[in-house]
Amino acid sequence: MNDTKLTQIEQARKGNATKALKQVAEEEGLPADQILELVALGKVVIPLNPNHGDIHPVGIGSQLRTKVNVNIGTSEDFPEIENELKKTEIALKYKTDTIMDLSTGGDINKIRRKILDKARIPLGTVPIYQVGIQAIEKRGAIVDMTAEDIFSVIEEQAQEGVDFMTVHAGLTSKAIDRLKKQGRIADIVSRGGAFHLAWILHNQKENPFYEKFDRLLDIAHKYDVTLSLGDGLRPGAIADASDRPQFEELLTLGELVKRSWEAGVQVMVEGPGHVPLDQIDMNMKIQKRVCQGAPFYVLGPIVTDIAPGYDHIVSAIGGAVAAWSGADFLCYVTPSEHLGLPTHDDVREGVIASRIAAHAADIVKGVSGAAEKDSAISKARRRLDWEAQKKLAIDPYKFEDIRNQRQTKSKACSMCGDFCALQMVEDFLNSSEKASDASTE
Amino acid sequence: MNDTKLTQIEQARKGNATKALKQVAEEEGLPADQILELVALGKVVIPLNPNHGDIHPVGIGSQLRTKVNVNIGTSEDFPEIENELKKTEIALKYKTDTIMDLSTGGDINKIRRKILDKARIPLGTVPIYQVGIQAIEKRGAIVDMTAEDIFSVIEEQAQEGVDFMTVHAGLTSKAIDRLKKQGRIADIVSRGGAFHLAWILHNQKENPFYEKFDRLLDIAHKYDVTLSLGDGLRPGAIADASDRPQFEELLTLGELVKRSWEAGVQVMVEGPGHVPLDQIDMNMKIQKRVCQGAPFYVLGPIVTDIAPGYDHIVSAIGGAVAAWSGADFLCYVTPSEHLGLPTHDDVREGVIASRIAAHAADIVKGVSGAAEKDSAISKARRRLDWEAQKKLAIDPYKFEDIRNQRQTKSKACSMCGDFCALQMVEDFLNSSEKASDASTE
Repeated sequence: MNDTKLTQIEQARKGNATKALKQVAEEEGLPADQILELVALGKVVIPLNPNHGDIHPVGIGSQLRTKVNVNIGTSEDFPEIENELKKTEIALKYKTDTIMDLSTGGDINKIRRKILDKARIPLGTVPIYQVGIQAIEKRGAIVDMTAEDIFSVIEEQAQEGVDFMTVHAGLTSKAIDRLKKQGRIADIVSRGGAFHLAWILHNQKENPFYEKFDRLLDIAHKYDVTLSLGDGLRPGAIADASDRPQFEELLTLGELVKRSWEAGVQVMVEGPGHVPLDQIDMNMKIQKRVCQGAPFYVLGPIVTDIAPGYDHIVSAIGGAVAAWSGADFLCYVTPSEHLGLPTHDDVREGVIASRIAAHAADIVKGVSGAAEKDSAISKARRRLDWEAQKKLAIDPYKFEDIRNQRQTKSKACSMCGDFCALQMVEDFLNSSEKASDASTE
Repeated sequence: MNDTKLTQIEQARKGNATKALKQVAEEEGLPADQILELVALGKVVIPLNPNHGDIHPVGIGSQLRTKVNVNIGTSEDFPEIENELKKTEIALKYKTDTIMDLSTGGDINKIRRKILDKARIPLGTVPIYQVGIQAIEKRGAIVDMTAEDIFSVIEEQAQEGVDFMTVHAGLTSKAIDRLKKQGRIADIVSRGGAFHLAWILHNQKENPFYEKFDRLLDIAHKYDVTLSLGDGLRPGAIADASDRPQFEELLTLGELVKRSWEAGVQVMVEGPGHVPLDQIDMNMKIQKRVCQGAPFYVLGPIVTDIAPGYDHIVSAIGGAVAAWSGADFLCYVTPSEHLGLPTHDDVREGVIASRIAAHAADIVKGVSGAAEKDSAISKARRRLDWEAQKKLAIDPYKFEDIRNQRQTKSKACSMCGDFCALQMVEDFLNSSEKASDASTE
């Protein structure tokens, strides 16, 4: 019944509920018909490259649980594969929805293949990193990469099974002009964005992703790779948020969303960046409008620049507000952001912080089953049932560690001990209710 | 010129700018006249008991920097004084604005006096804890405490120099009736609230704080103790937020604010609790309206129940949104909340998380000098000036630790190394600007 040559969006348009779509519907607790319509409209993507094999399908977009992504990957200073495989394990243990491999150090082909093997969830990449590194190796500089280099790397990664790819197709010459006129504190903080800017300025040519977008669409369609339209001009400082270059790029991304849909390619859009609290809602609404409801994938937002070492917390604040305002997919940020490559512990802290933000938003977005989780753990807390609370906690391992470190003789916890409010109220409110029931008899 | 028998609010009403008020004005970067008017109207408090000696004065309320409080204190399981003195040091090192001593274990009088000595910033307490514990010692049960016990402990603590006190004066018999009718998941999670409920139900009498509020006002006036009207009925589960018992108590607190002002007593109001994201703004606005602009002191808000072990992050999300919506004073929450007494590390994590939330809100509240801090660190980041960034970071110690752990040969950081976007853009954007400048000459 399903035409396997068609992408998820094309299948949905034909009314075919794929196996993956049915699984997504079941996990979300929503009717398959509803998911089918959302995928057909492009409001939900299911990034799933058939060459990745039988992975766990994940739906991202409107009306679904807000999803979380973990970035891992080597750097020049830390090129060891084992480290990144360990981070993959941790990311999976703490229940990330997707992983992106952003490796730029060591044998990045080998690393990507190992992670593709290990991660049975959607895997994303930023292919321009590999293109840039190969350009340095083969031609001496990033600015010497060619359009051929770019598309051959993309096809290679698609063939291997990469499920979604970030492409900075909206960082055009015109956007760079606006950037120059703007006068930002931090012009560009996107690594991929910087590669493109360097290439465009050095070669005095238009961004190849933009100019040859149809060629990109052909590859994406062939492998059902979901495009993630990158925001190379995302603000890197609070003071730069929501400026003309940012929105110039967004307008172009909106046009590219339309072209992707016309080509039967699944697409989502990436967003800012450093954004003060009172500009987040506006940013989410502009994206949803200009990009006609395409899923929005946000990094942060980072709501203050002053907290390196704690940017997982900064991003949890921004991410919660963003998801509440309509963002569908949160890219985690770790405590090491702005300082260095994340450690294993950072991955854990980052993914949990993002999941907290996503869940806090899902409660108020009315996501199916979200608020029920809070009521379940609160009922267990009211009963002082520590085992049940542990099972329902977002991180049962940390729950247990803290409890074990702080032994108490009380049935309650070591903060209040026998002065536990819950226990006292249970004793008095219930006993008084019984007494007053008795007196009215 | 200043009448030392008058409280800060009475001095301000007379147009006398006290030494403390002038210091507050200078630190806030605002004219003393503006602070004077805000204190006179009750919209700003300066908790400063003259018996605490020459402490650092702190203004809390409208138009000022959002302040942060750290709770410390022994429990039955961990009664050691040294532990809590160490926490006091950590709280001061990481720049809390105030401290509350909530000790309930060991020699709590001695502990409080030691902390009063050590903390040269405003110190708060919840006197009912001491009253309850003494009632157990002297009379066998908390419910056997008397109004005399209560006021003698309050006078004793005021005499010693406690600057602000939480009193649960709004937890009346009527509020308990509404609580019974409501049917909450977690009836009462406030320890002080539970003491009162137990006492009221057992003795079938009205809350002594409410019934003898004038007596409380006399003591508060005598020592210029700032009252912090506690929310014994704050919701302890997302599902219980913004319900009738909560607002019943708030209405009473609004009346008590008015009576405090009439008596020349400084007063602030405490607020929820567990509150979903979309109810925070409404809660802040109701409090400000019903309590006629009195400063709002919030615990959390906790925006999801499912993350014990990470409630500092949960509260940073809620606290940022609350402060943005008008909360003036954030009580920190540590990773151990709902699990046990906080450790030394927890104190650090808690105070920094709260300071991040406060600052993220101050940027958008337009607090004097707030956004400038972000621009300063972002400019240092743009220059890859790591020393300047460290000095401007909210936690320079953690900044340094992470940098030291992740050595790099690059001028940038170990995440991107030589692929640093900032560095690449600097090289290309500037060189291209120079080239194009040259070509037009």
